[in-house]
Amino acid sequence: MTPRLEIEYCTQCRWLLRAAWTAQELLTTFATDLGEVALIPGIGGVFEVRLDGETLWSRKAEGGFPEIPLLKRMVRDRIAPDRDLGHSDKKA
Amino acid sequence: MTPRLEIEYCTQCRWLLRAAWTAQELLTTFATDLGEVALIPGIGGVFEVRLDGETLWSRKAEGGFPEIPLLKRMVRDRIAPDRDLGHSDKKA
Repeated sequence: MTPRLEIEYCTQCRWLLRAAWTAQELLTTFATDLGEVALIPGIGGVFEVRLDGETLWSRKAEGGFPEIPLLKRMVRDRIAPDRDLGHSDKKA
Repeated sequence: MTPRLEIEYCTQCRWLLRAAWTAQELLTTFATDLGEVALIPGIGGVFEVRLDGETLWSRKAEGGFPEIPLLKRMVRDRIAPDRDLGHSDKKA
């Protein structure tokens, strides 16, 4: 179902809780805009967030983890451009 | 990615946390067996768990919510039949 947001996380690094938290943040904000959020177990230190195939965040490329307000702005700009995100619209 | 487990939940009923908890239980047990777990926002009191298109649990049909040990046995039987689930293998 689209829009489809994917969160691929490293199971060896035990990032499931982080991935699930990120999923819940996005599903709380975009409950009626997102078709689904898929949690995808991966390996080797992966932490990637993709929206309909477009990579929004890659730990490999950017290091660390994405700030939730930044992710929300990236998702908003793509699937709900008129949405006011409140405090998440200020710079993190 | 398969096996694909879907959890469709009613946003109006605010079952996101329940759906996300169920997802984490299954991803903790089947981290290397599941291809993905998709959280799917729905409406109208829906709470359904599907594995590769097969409905494992439907609130409409069965009422209430699935017991996690039962869900784990259903998933195990289909994607990791040799797996010992420990205490989840005893009857709930």
